Amino acid sequence: MTHKIAILGASGYTGAELVRIIATHPTMEIVALSADRKAGMRMGDVYPHLAHLDLPALVKMEEIDFAGVDLVFAALPHGLSQALVRDLPRGVKVVDLGADFRLRDPAAYEKWYGQPHVAPELQKEAVYGLTEFYRDEIRDARLVAGTGCNAATVQYALRPLIGQGLIDLDRIICDLKNGISGAGRSLKENMLFAERATNVEGYAQGGRHRHLGEFDQEFALLAGRPVEIIFTPHLVPATRGILADCYVEGDPQAIHAALARTYADEPFITVLPFGRAPGMGHVTASNLCHIGVIPDRKENRALIVSTLDNLTKGSSGQAVQNANLMLGEDETTGLMLAPVFP
Amino acid sequence: MTHKIAILGASGYTGAELVRIIATHPTMEIVALSADRKAGMRMGDVYPHLAHLDLPALVKMEEIDFAGVDLVFAALPHGLSQALVRDLPRGVKVVDLGADFRLRDPAAYEKWYGQPHVAPELQKEAVYGLTEFYRDEIRDARLVAGTGCNAATVQYALRPLIGQGLIDLDRIICDLKNGISGAGRSLKENMLFAERATNVEGYAQGGRHRHLGEFDQEFALLAGRPVEIIFTPHLVPATRGILADCYVEGDPQAIHAALARTYADEPFITVLPFGRAPGMGHVTASNLCHIGVIPDRKENRALIVSTLDNLTKGSSGQAVQNANLMLGEDETTGLMLAPVFP
Amino acid sequence: MTHKIAILGASGYTGAELVRIIATHPTMEIVALSADRKAGMRMGDVYPHLAHLDLPALVKMEEIDFAGVDLVFAALPHGLSQALVRDLPRGVKVVDLGADFRLRDPAAYEKWYGQPHVAPELQKEAVYGLTEFYRDEIRDARLVAGTGCNAATVQYALRPLIGQGLIDLDRIICDLKNGISGAGRSLKENMLFAERATNVEGYAQGGRHRHLGEFDQEFALLAGRPVEIIFTPHLVPATRGILADCYVEGDPQAIHAALARTYADEPFITVLPFGRAPGMGHVTASNLCHIGVIPDRKENRALIVSTLDNLTKGSSGQAVQNANLMLGEDETTGLMLAPVFP
Amino acid sequence: MTHKIAILGASGYTGAELVRIIATHPTMEIVALSADRKAGMRMGDVYPHLAHLDLPALVKMEEIDFAGVDLVFAALPHGLSQALVRDLPRGVKVVDLGADFRLRDPAAYEKWYGQPHVAPELQKEAVYGLTEFYRDEIRDARLVAGTGCNAATVQYALRPLIGQGLIDLDRIICDLKNGISGAGRSLKENMLFAERATNVEGYAQGGRHRHLGEFDQEFALLAGRPVEIIFTPHLVPATRGILADCYVEGDPQAIHAALARTYADEPFITVLPFGRAPGMGHVTASNLCHIGVIPDRKENRALIVSTLDNLTKGSSGQAVQNANLMLGEDETTGLMLAPVFP
Repeated sequence: MTHKIAILGASGYTGAELVRIIATHPTMEIVALSADRKAGMRMGDVYPHLAHLDLPALVKMEEIDFAGVDLVFAALPHGLSQALVRDLPRGVKVVDLGADFRLRDPAAYEKWYGQPHVAPELQKEAVYGLTEFYRDEIRDARLVAGTGCNAATVQYALRPLIGQGLIDLDRIICDLKNGISGAGRSLKENMLFAERATNVEGYAQGGRHRHLGEFDQEFALLAGRPVEIIFTPHLVPATRGILADCYVEGDPQAIHAALARTYADEPFITVLPFGRAPGMGHVTASNLCHIGVIPDRKENRALIVSTLDNLTKGSSGQAVQNANLMLGEDETTGLMLAPVFP
Repeated sequence: MTHKIAILGASGYTGAELVRIIATHPTMEIVALSADRKAGMRMGDVYPHLAHLDLPALVKMEEIDFAGVDLVFAALPHGLSQALVRDLPRGVKVVDLGADFRLRDPAAYEKWYGQPHVAPELQKEAVYGLTEFYRDEIRDARLVAGTGCNAATVQYALRPLIGQGLIDLDRIICDLKNGISGAGRSLKENMLFAERATNVEGYAQGGRHRHLGEFDQEFALLAGRPVEIIFTPHLVPATRGILADCYVEGDPQAIHAALARTYADEPFITVLPFGRAPGMGHVTASNLCHIGVIPDRKENRALIVSTLDNLTKGSSGQAVQNANLMLGEDETTGLMLAPVFP
Repeated sequence: MTHKIAILGASGYTGAELVRIIATHPTMEIVALSADRKAGMRMGDVYPHLAHLDLPALVKMEEIDFAGVDLVFAALPHGLSQALVRDLPRGVKVVDLGADFRLRDPAAYEKWYGQPHVAPELQKEAVYGLTEFYRDEIRDARLVAGTGCNAATVQYALRPLIGQGLIDLDRIICDLKNGISGAGRSLKENMLFAERATNVEGYAQGGRHRHLGEFDQEFALLAGRPVEIIFTPHLVPATRGILADCYVEGDPQAIHAALARTYADEPFITVLPFGRAPGMGHVTASNLCHIGVIPDRKENRALIVSTLDNLTKGSSGQAVQNANLMLGEDETTGLMLAPVFP
Repeated sequence: MTHKIAILGASGYTGAELVRIIATHPTMEIVALSADRKAGMRMGDVYPHLAHLDLPALVKMEEIDFAGVDLVFAALPHGLSQALVRDLPRGVKVVDLGADFRLRDPAAYEKWYGQPHVAPELQKEAVYGLTEFYRDEIRDARLVAGTGCNAATVQYALRPLIGQGLIDLDRIICDLKNGISGAGRSLKENMLFAERATNVEGYAQGGRHRHLGEFDQEFALLAGRPVEIIFTPHLVPATRGILADCYVEGDPQAIHAALARTYADEPFITVLPFGRAPGMGHVTASNLCHIGVIPDRKENRALIVSTLDNLTKGSSGQAVQNANLMLGEDETTGLMLAPVFP
């Protein structure tokens, strides 16, 4: 049985990555692609690497007949999904790759995104899309909220430790190295090649990054009390990938054991042998996440390094993984692509 | 039915790329991996991006029992395949990714590679592995010689034109931009990151590059007379990909028409609309080749631009494509992976 | 004696490069910096790498009192310099880094730039800024027109050969590899890091690039007849530098001898030993140009490779070199900075 | 007066960087260059970017007549400087860019470098080369030990805070992003372009990096008690530069004030306005260090970001700065080169 898929916001990088993945997915068929400003163009003109595929032309969102659609991937700038999802026929399942449904609390949403949510009832309904931890709810969900790419990378490293009380909750520091595709395809001077090619720079330091809303929500749920991590993302001269260094206080061996146990049967998450650290380039273009635990010379200190591809496991691959569950497919269908290296 | 595959020289980049492709190939199973200097290691230690796969450990070549092998991919430094292939059981099919069987003429081999061939009878038997032009012979071959990656890129642009007499044979200039993985994983000072990251440099200019042996052989066959092209490869700060600019004298429209006609039904080769040029980044990690024809302001001059991924269509993808034919599979099996961009 | 310098359009890359060079120039002092859209900002906010310098704030062009200015560098988008230079006090010398005064023929200007020139009398007056060939005129000029960066790279390779009749004028092919800073700091989707970092692409192929106006003008002057070269620039994933491969028909030894003779006493231009090719990364951030000549296996064919830094010798360094002459300084003053490698 | 300079180990990146800097230094003259394995070659053959300079040929160390040398820069692999410096004529001043004299305690040296020191008396004599903090001793020194490049970057951020008791000494975490030239020019598989170009990876995590010997020594001196920082360097796909994120517990405003005060009159060190972070690309090829302080949303937590060019301020620029002092020159002589951007 083939599932009819629509992708909204197909002209962004996560939209293109969805198309790339679905191109070899055995039971998904793309029946509609929207991109408001590029409506009328063919996908192959917007993304020449997809020109060989037989794809519907880009249309405006309102031109799509959702009656023939089983599942929608919404890869829209934040703010645009709320009304859209609210107005879709109830029978259409939705995986939202943006930020609109990640936070359950309307006040938290307004705090981090600067405006009230227009569909607070959907905020409640939406299931948080970190598949390995919300698998059962996702299977039955109509609306799944894809996580932030940074949020996924760090949560894979920390959730089992916070949940099991293995680390000091007041001293968690996460330093991230981010490939630049995470900034999307919109035009900003500081995203020009010449600005970034020989540069490394942090941004939104000190507690200003919006993905903190997700961390605060999820870690508080796990800990049963507020948890505020320190979080610094950095732009490095790479296109894809996030490498997160998480510095914690706790017993390194116990931390490693907890992670290894948690992910023992997970198809996409690999915990490396104790003391070994992963490299960002070894998960590129795959749905894999590699995690390592390194003990420090200082007692009771550990470094947990987690890495994934922001466009795949951090966004579009995760979205397909969730859609597989929602559509009754095996979770790994179409997602066992091996990483590209070098 | 599953085909049992052995990869010799699995620790090089083309070996790793074979593993990456075969990881999602539905009817190939890797039963042996050799790497002399790294024998005893697991593939995941040599290439962490392949650690999640269930693969046999690396062994020395002589430890492999070829009785249980249907097809061997030999990804060895040139010179090493000759005796090896000669000594294999006759029932084992071989795709050689090195240079050992590309040239049919022993004298030509000796000229370009500086030593006599040790298995000249196999030189004669080997089929040249440019699939789109040797498809029928490949289907029945026991031994297929994979082409040079530069040789593939340029031949896709020029073979139809030389074969059909559309261009001046004495004035063909090919200027190539090459991703650095083409140089392999061996240790050379000028392949260090710091040496290449902000540098562009030609090499083997003026008629010294070994792939010229292939061009001379193939183009003379097509033209019925010697054809010597001018050929300059360049190292550019990219990991994968070759972009070839071929400057020719001939009618641009006729050239475009001939290319479009030749490749109309080819699954992996796309001829862009007249006047449009392809980008190297749009075929990355795929088995695709994109070709464009641009007319010059000077009459009767055309630029043909051809691009492919040196590790995929230029080497390991081509090898799997040929193996598919040799094993009775559909040629595209396992090869419809979409390019990775950005 | 200190020369008072104003830089118009200081917020672009060539503007910033002028500031970088002048920072250690012993006899130039920057007294005014303009940048219309960024007026009011400090240069260190627009370019943090220049924050340590004691520089005037950015102002609008009309706020500058040109009475106290000896020489103006105009680094403006093409079209803007014409009226501006016309209206400057006659006592102020001008080096224009844009395209407005490169072409002497109003018809040629209109053909390549799509609009009539508003100061055709200045077009006539302006001296073409390829220092090594227009040194005497530059010394006495009020207005010097900096060359295109591609135009400089290729002319250093070809002028002596065209001038001395050493090559076939109807068969000159120039294939360029260009660092991306040449595209400037303006916002274009195809200049984003993610679009360019793993990509190589030609542009304006087939005779459409505006620098051809300069080639046509200069080469016709040298040859006494029209000369149309074939010219293809490419964007490669590097920030700075141009490497030009010029394929010509002529005697390689004679070509090398002519180039070596022409540039024997030039402080910034090095002709490598016969048969050796330069690398783009070896002139970065310097005012040097390296040239090599490689003979082909085909008789009477040569490859001339020329490389320079587009922002320095190709633009701002050249501009300072010309300004030195115009101000009575030694031509090399402040310009002997060694290249940065790696 | 011109100072006669010899560079030992000139064929490494720090050797080449010394030559680049001294090329425009008004009072230093290079009279000897050694490179044991490349003895007999010209510097321009080893480093084409230095070919335009009039330099002595590379010789073996023992061929140098040190009688005519005022100051030696030793840029040798660690372990080689010890005996060498011991055996030099006492009248020759030495700046050692390696690790041999950074640690004063023979036991510490043996712990971090795995072998006993052969010239422990010189270990005691050597002055630690962090100019801004050892200026007076350097002025009178015969032997100065250049700091590690990581060690310099982090110490600029932390010394004033540790010295003034502004931060919790048991909770200092330093996460570094390192350009790859820091690994030098020696052949290692993991330093190949293809391995690093799309990769980010930490190394020597958990307290194993040798620069910790320097931190332990210097911070204990400042604090009057042992201080063990947590320290993780990472290779990022850039050639030059180190960006250090230092996470500390203390009052952000007080921290910023202390840094601003400490460096107020330093020519090479800039403390940015409170809350602003520096970018690694904005100090490239200069002797500058940029420092920023960002407060966290968590009370009493601050992020201090420090960045410099590992080859310049982190090594060869620092060495020239120290040599200037030792030779009675102004400290900034020849070092006011502006950063190269983009």
